[in-house]
Amino acid sequence: MRHEVGDRHPRRSSLSRRYLLEAAADQGLLAGTAMIAHGRGEAFDYLLGERTSEAARRATGQAAALLAAATSPIISVNGNTAVLAGRELLECAALLSCSLELSIFYRTPERMTGLLALLAGQRDESAGVPPTGWTGGDGSWAEAVTAVPILGANDDGRIPCLDGPRARCETAGILSADAVLVPLEDGDRCEALVGMGLPVVVIDLNPLSRSARMADVTVVDEVSRFASNLRDLLLQTPPDVDEDWDNDACLQDSLRLIANRFLG
Amino acid sequence: MRHEVGDRHPRRSSLSRRYLLEAAADQGLLAGTAMIAHGRGEAFDYLLGERTSEAARRATGQAAALLAAATSPIISVNGNTAVLAGRELLECAALLSCSLELSIFYRTPERMTGLLALLAGQRDESAGVPPTGWTGGDGSWAEAVTAVPILGANDDGRIPCLDGPRARCETAGILSADAVLVPLEDGDRCEALVGMGLPVVVIDLNPLSRSARMADVTVVDEVSRFASNLRDLLLQTPPDVDEDWDNDACLQDSLRLIANRFLG
Repeated sequence: MRHEVGDRHPRRSSLSRRYLLEAAADQGLLAGTAMIAHGRGEAFDYLLGERTSEAARRATGQAAALLAAATSPIISVNGNTAVLAGRELLECAALLSCSLELSIFYRTPERMTGLLALLAGQRDESAGVPPTGWTGGDGSWAEAVTAVPILGANDDGRIPCLDGPRARCETAGILSADAVLVPLEDGDRCEALVGMGLPVVVIDLNPLSRSARMADVTVVDEVSRFASNLRDLLLQTPPDVDEDWDNDACLQDSLRLIANRFLG
Repeated sequence: MRHEVGDRHPRRSSLSRRYLLEAAADQGLLAGTAMIAHGRGEAFDYLLGERTSEAARRATGQAAALLAAATSPIISVNGNTAVLAGRELLECAALLSCSLELSIFYRTPERMTGLLALLAGQRDESAGVPPTGWTGGDGSWAEAVTAVPILGANDDGRIPCLDGPRARCETAGILSADAVLVPLEDGDRCEALVGMGLPVVVIDLNPLSRSARMADVTVVDEVSRFASNLRDLLLQTPPDVDEDWDNDACLQDSLRLIANRFLG
């Protein structure tokens, strides 16, 4: 009962996400440090007013453009992302005709199996309900989303220049991609992906993080809001890639937004 | 093995605290939301440079003065505080000859029993090693710290104007106090304590929180650093109470410090 959030609570969405994660942790899907990482994100989102900023909208547009322009993009998700935005990102993958790859920091067979099942369930749920804005028929939507490969179980590849279990990946996934979307990435892995030479789009609520500063496109936004916004853009004609994209300038806008929160 | 943090890691203290909390959560001592709350604190501490600011030092001085001047102060701790700074706060209680009261947000018999045992163990450990700066003998230190009552099991009282399990407290504890130190407090409970009319000292890394804005003295610092600093002040002649203490001005200093982090 304590987990019911009143409809009019000003921080309803944020609290609902917190309880989703807590339930997933109770099921053994997330490490304790994943909860702590979520808390760090919550703090930054609170500073951003828990809404998508104009800078985040610009970055989401550039992310949509880069992913739509790629021949073989991939969407990489960790545990928190799967819980909070798995369904929306599977829908993005359907619209991009690409794969989604699960990659978790503290890899255990139990967590991998549980999260892969969670994602498969989200894909089934989505197949029954085309997103608002889908102009094809119900059957064609079910076909598109059901066709999305959920990778990660078969860790036959390694990301170059990265040690330990975080390097594990699928040859058919990240290693075959020409653009990658990596929400909530740790700095070392982001650096290794950038080092592979493919365009990297990162979602990170902390505009000061190493991932945020290294990525080609950084969306400073909460991952489930971002995933909904990206899906809505991909349902329309995707925007053109901005060849003069200035990621630092976009990050600066987010930094100023947060600083103003403290300066009143 | 993954939990060993290299001696030279720039964020060693912060990571060590994270692993302490994760271990406590694995033992069932903390709710999942406690981990998320820690993450929020981590984000603010990161913005503060993970060190005690000059503003936090001033506030700690005023906190020491208020607690030393009180006839019957009390130190209230929640689960995260017990794990991160229980021993130091028990030492503060010894130096103030006052009680420490455990009060947790999601009260279950298992968590209460486990955390009370943790605190009792910390008290035993401290009894064997007087803190640096203690000028009495080893025996007199053991006597002082062993005499600290650890309250919380006997929840025979209720904090006025507060609903639910958070209101539970001991008549011999908070309800008998004339000053209260409440690290990591939720806004509703802080408001109710302020409503009781006794001076409230809050430790909160978020200078924008309701607790931070309502307290009589707000120390914007990480709780284990604060607890060590408070103990060191109490080992000396405690400072005089600043009758013109301007808590808002002190909070403003912390806000500016964080804003500058974003403005570079």
